[in-house]
Amino acid sequence: MAKHLAKDSVEPQLVPGKLRFYSMRYCPYAQRVQLVLNAKKIPHDPVFINLSDKPEWYLNIFPAGKVPALIYDGKFLSESLHLADFLDEQYPEPPLWKNGPLQKILDKIFIESFGKVTSAFYKLMMTTPELEKSNFNELVESLKPVEDELAQRDSKYFGGSSPQMIDYMIWPWFERFDSIEPVSKGLFIFPLDKFPKLEKWKNAMVAEEAVAAYHLPPDKHAQHFIYRKSGLPAAFNF
Amino acid sequence: MAKHLAKDSVEPQLVPGKLRFYSMRYCPYAQRVQLVLNAKKIPHDPVFINLSDKPEWYLNIFPAGKVPALIYDGKFLSESLHLADFLDEQYPEPPLWKNGPLQKILDKIFIESFGKVTSAFYKLMMTTPELEKSNFNELVESLKPVEDELAQRDSKYFGGSSPQMIDYMIWPWFERFDSIEPVSKGLFIFPLDKFPKLEKWKNAMVAEEAVAAYHLPPDKHAQHFIYRKSGLPAAFNF
Repeated sequence: MAKHLAKDSVEPQLVPGKLRFYSMRYCPYAQRVQLVLNAKKIPHDPVFINLSDKPEWYLNIFPAGKVPALIYDGKFLSESLHLADFLDEQYPEPPLWKNGPLQKILDKIFIESFGKVTSAFYKLMMTTPELEKSNFNELVESLKPVEDELAQRDSKYFGGSSPQMIDYMIWPWFERFDSIEPVSKGLFIFPLDKFPKLEKWKNAMVAEEAVAAYHLPPDKHAQHFIYRKSGLPAAFNF
Repeated sequence: MAKHLAKDSVEPQLVPGKLRFYSMRYCPYAQRVQLVLNAKKIPHDPVFINLSDKPEWYLNIFPAGKVPALIYDGKFLSESLHLADFLDEQYPEPPLWKNGPLQKILDKIFIESFGKVTSAFYKLMMTTPELEKSNFNELVESLKPVEDELAQRDSKYFGGSSPQMIDYMIWPWFERFDSIEPVSKGLFIFPLDKFPKLEKWKNAMVAEEAVAAYHLPPDKHAQHFIYRKSGLPAAFNF
């Protein structure tokens, strides 16, 4: 489905008029940038990198070998949150930080605090062969302040009446929560019904054009987690 | 010289018309924000926090208990780079990201890569009782890409003809390099003459109004490092 370039690949030529976007189809950080590209309808040329068997040409450009990254005007740019901000400034329409400087820093602090959720999710999915109850509980617990935040904002999206940067930056993990069920063979199901605000928000988000265009079903994400844990090279190509 | 509030202190009342700025006189991250406040001449009310014996009232507002932080419009805001960006957007004059979105993200990536320098400096000054040659060499080595960057930019400041955010964000560590000599009792002296571009830049920076107003001499920084390593409570008040 998504071909990921590996060690012996050749660097694809840049496509005139399109931003080169180095990505990985199952990477939540790359998805953040993809959502911004989609929301702003920025012409781009995605190149997927096999992170288990990195292309030599990619390591030559970027020794850290990470995604997401963009090439803009010949410059290599990295880090999802920096890329999101850069795209918002370089391509102002529609603005994704429309609520002013104070709300922007508050949202950035919130996005950083969301690191508790991303760590808990990673720990649940990746650090032990079987999914563990204590890790599952930790993940569920980590979502409580997120539900509270949305309740306090009392808006459809975290950003107000339309999705803003904050919504796109946290979305990729919500898409993946549904893969907990197939990965755990039905043992754990993310209890979204315990988070009524987030449940409504998630339903609204998945219907958004920018989100829907890159959405993957739970079994695809599940397959990636299972492959990655097994160490199979197929992890990046299916 | 600078009174730092400790455990049993009382939260000082906000000063009308001034931003409350939670700081620590010897913290390089707090200094970043101080430099932006100075450069933009933003009225502020600094409150120094004793980080070895944190005030209970501060932990109640901010459980992480870190500095720097600001209170703006009743909201508690933290993280030096976020605060710097917030101040630049909320108080646009003079602009400190004046070179456009592309240069801004390149500078942000550079500021992050400067983490190698800050880690090497911390390791040299704080992790062993005596300063070690290998750590000193590592610090010197970490400055080479910084010298190269300034040489490539071929401008007086990293930001061009005037100091920009990038200059202020990395400055605090350069101020502290001179304290290596007194802390090591003359054993190590930072070889700034091996970095001619940085040497000129440093001389220009220290003469800048925003920098000079908060500059401390090497022996003050040295005293703080020595106190901190000894674990003496005096570390924050002298």
